[in-house]
Amino acid sequence: MQRYFVAPEQMTETMVTITGDDVKHIVRVMRMKVGDEFICANGKLRTVRCEMTYFDETCVEAKIIEELSANAELPIEVTVAQGLPKGNKLEFVVQKGTELGAHSFIPFTAHRSVVKWNEKKANRQQTRLEKIAKEAAEQSHRDCLPIVTHVHSIEQLIQTFSTFDLVLVGFEESARMGEHHTFVKALRSLESGQSLLLLIGPEGGFAEEEIKKMTEAGATLCSFGPRILRTETASLYALAAISYHFELKR
Amino acid sequence: MQRYFVAPEQMTETMVTITGDDVKHIVRVMRMKVGDEFICANGKLRTVRCEMTYFDETCVEAKIIEELSANAELPIEVTVAQGLPKGNKLEFVVQKGTELGAHSFIPFTAHRSVVKWNEKKANRQQTRLEKIAKEAAEQSHRDCLPIVTHVHSIEQLIQTFSTFDLVLVGFEESARMGEHHTFVKALRSLESGQSLLLLIGPEGGFAEEEIKKMTEAGATLCSFGPRILRTETASLYALAAISYHFELKR
Repeated sequence: MQRYFVAPEQMTETMVTITGDDVKHIVRVMRMKVGDEFICANGKLRTVRCEMTYFDETCVEAKIIEELSANAELPIEVTVAQGLPKGNKLEFVVQKGTELGAHSFIPFTAHRSVVKWNEKKANRQQTRLEKIAKEAAEQSHRDCLPIVTHVHSIEQLIQTFSTFDLVLVGFEESARMGEHHTFVKALRSLESGQSLLLLIGPEGGFAEEEIKKMTEAGATLCSFGPRILRTETASLYALAAISYHFELKR
Repeated sequence: MQRYFVAPEQMTETMVTITGDDVKHIVRVMRMKVGDEFICANGKLRTVRCEMTYFDETCVEAKIIEELSANAELPIEVTVAQGLPKGNKLEFVVQKGTELGAHSFIPFTAHRSVVKWNEKKANRQQTRLEKIAKEAAEQSHRDCLPIVTHVHSIEQLIQTFSTFDLVLVGFEESARMGEHHTFVKALRSLESGQSLLLLIGPEGGFAEEEIKKMTEAGATLCSFGPRILRTETASLYALAAISYHFELKR
């Protein structure tokens, strides 16, 4: 059944009101009619099955038939902070990371980021990434809509460390030196409901100075196995492993 | 240090001979000179550090300085059989799957594959995917070069089942029905050195008839967590989880 995210205020006790691009998708692409059913999630863990009662060019209304229990969210809130990579890799990270259960994404300008975003580009990219996250969340049947923040500097990123239960940095040198146990120990130390910030460098990895600042601020360095992963693959490895550890092994 | 794969016969006890596209990369792109060092792997678990002794337009020769111990291979040989997906998703699966440690890839024509390959296209695609695997294997510091086979039919694929220790099928319905333990049990049943065939359907998933044939031939159906993954993400989830289970938890 087709799925759509709506803002929390668009979902009352009994009704859902849909506006914006999704109206076109429901009416034109899916050609749904009054009486047809679809699923709506408010992005805050409330997911409902509903039946269309009215539509026009700008608005679809539907009555709620059934409250569905939310069960597609990772028990750990994982925020992926990705050093700005080249090309369309950030879109890839947001799309695949959303499928794999990430709670939020923070793009940040790392020392070795080749790409630079000015304010205008940063705003445009944020809107674009939010759209990609919404589509991926609908397709993968998420109950929460991942948050994509505005681009951060490394200093701004470090200031957020204290709001997380654990901060992990993917560090290529750890992989080269054969250190493969820190990530497992870190996951074992986490409990359901806790939050994890996962930092991934851009193509060239983190600069020494960045590693120093991050570890001084309490971050733990770790590897994701013996192979050297590209920047856009690292967070996906971590998210899949987190899902395996917390969702499948239980 | 730069890495290159060579055919086993290009590596003797003491020397490596490089021919083909890599010569251009070494001489023109990297601008290496006699005396410069690089790493060579023969794709069969022998990896060496070597020093260039001679080059011309078509050939580079290097003497072996050090035998490196091979340690970047998954302890389980994982073959990813991917139902032909749309667009460039198969290239993506091979690139990322190679980074994540896959041993081989078998593209196959599934009932719901929209794309059809004739003989000419199949040959061209195989060559292209082999090139992608080689580049990804070099970049991720693999010691083995993943094999990409010619496209299989589902019947040909089923005939290979008996050559694997375990055959798993990613099945969306298992995810929907909340079955999340089979994959873990399957991994727990495997030991280092054993082989796993992982079957992933195309965009529309497997047809009922295919599921029937595969399970009758001994395959086990499993889910990769509670979220619905796109076809190109499923094998990456499985490979990351396998790495976590066999390489990190030890």
